[in-house]
Amino acid sequence: MGFWKSLFSSSDAPSAPQAMHMEGDTSRAVGDRASSRIFFSTEREIDLYELEELCDAVGWSRRPLRKVKKAIQHSFLVVSMWEQQGSHRRLIGFSRATSDHAFNATIWDVVVHPDFQSKGLGKALMKQVIKKLRSEDISNITLFADPQVVDFYRNLGFMSDPEGIKGMFWYPD
Amino acid sequence: MGFWKSLFSSSDAPSAPQAMHMEGDTSRAVGDRASSRIFFSTEREIDLYELEELCDAVGWSRRPLRKVKKAIQHSFLVVSMWEQQGSHRRLIGFSRATSDHAFNATIWDVVVHPDFQSKGLGKALMKQVIKKLRSEDISNITLFADPQVVDFYRNLGFMSDPEGIKGMFWYPD
Repeated sequence: MGFWKSLFSSSDAPSAPQAMHMEGDTSRAVGDRASSRIFFSTEREIDLYELEELCDAVGWSRRPLRKVKKAIQHSFLVVSMWEQQGSHRRLIGFSRATSDHAFNATIWDVVVHPDFQSKGLGKALMKQVIKKLRSEDISNITLFADPQVVDFYRNLGFMSDPEGIKGMFWYPD
Repeated sequence: MGFWKSLFSSSDAPSAPQAMHMEGDTSRAVGDRASSRIFFSTEREIDLYELEELCDAVGWSRRPLRKVKKAIQHSFLVVSMWEQQGSHRRLIGFSRATSDHAFNATIWDVVVHPDFQSKGLGKALMKQVIKKLRSEDISNITLFADPQVVDFYRNLGFMSDPEGIKGMFWYPD
């Protein structure tokens, strides 16, 4: 079900075009972590406390772990991002998408640990999500973006309100 | 799994508050169909050709039935609306929602047959969808609305771009 993908490491020369693209960011991303690598995974067996810690780090409100577990189980796609140093893996990014498995997907809960932000890793994470959804023949990839990340998603090829289509949220009276 | 709910009929007095609310529309909705009733269902065993006919009637582009079937199977919720006259049932409305079964749901493919529009039936259909999602403890109900139906959803309690959150769609380069 899952896949592990090494984006880059400071010791190996990147070979895939995307890894090449990330090379310039690599030195900044890994900094003094000489032997660290960044990995992506679609495995759902994520330590919920580690995920909570990641979400705490960006200031998100806590959510019941029981519901987080259920949401992960019932997401169409889960992509997590990890820093590996030796045998130690650290969860540094996360994203998931709901879908009807046919036409539409909606991306939720995109998070990158503050220590790893502004290094192109959020972009790399989203590219993994998009690539995976496209490989599953999903044509309509959507999300709801907070104002401060609209430009981030725009740079990735997302359009806001295309043809006047509005994202709407229901609120009880 | 499914439920059948009679919204109103021209012979029975409505009793639920929602049915009461619809009473004024009932005469218009059923018109000369003296013995017709409107039903809602969450059954997924919908004749795909009948659904295609409904979507044709509102001018939607045709989609491969294989994918429509898959999308229905993998939707969290499907609500269809039917007119029943004697033993004959006619599909007059449809809606479905994707979800992570925990936090978020996104409503797709809301359609009411033109013969049954402007009678409050789209509103009744959406109220069924919202009620069902709320009963499943989904707190975040979302959708993407074409410009001409933004006011329709606003009247149902949906807000566009709350706190500047933008609906975004990914387009390949």
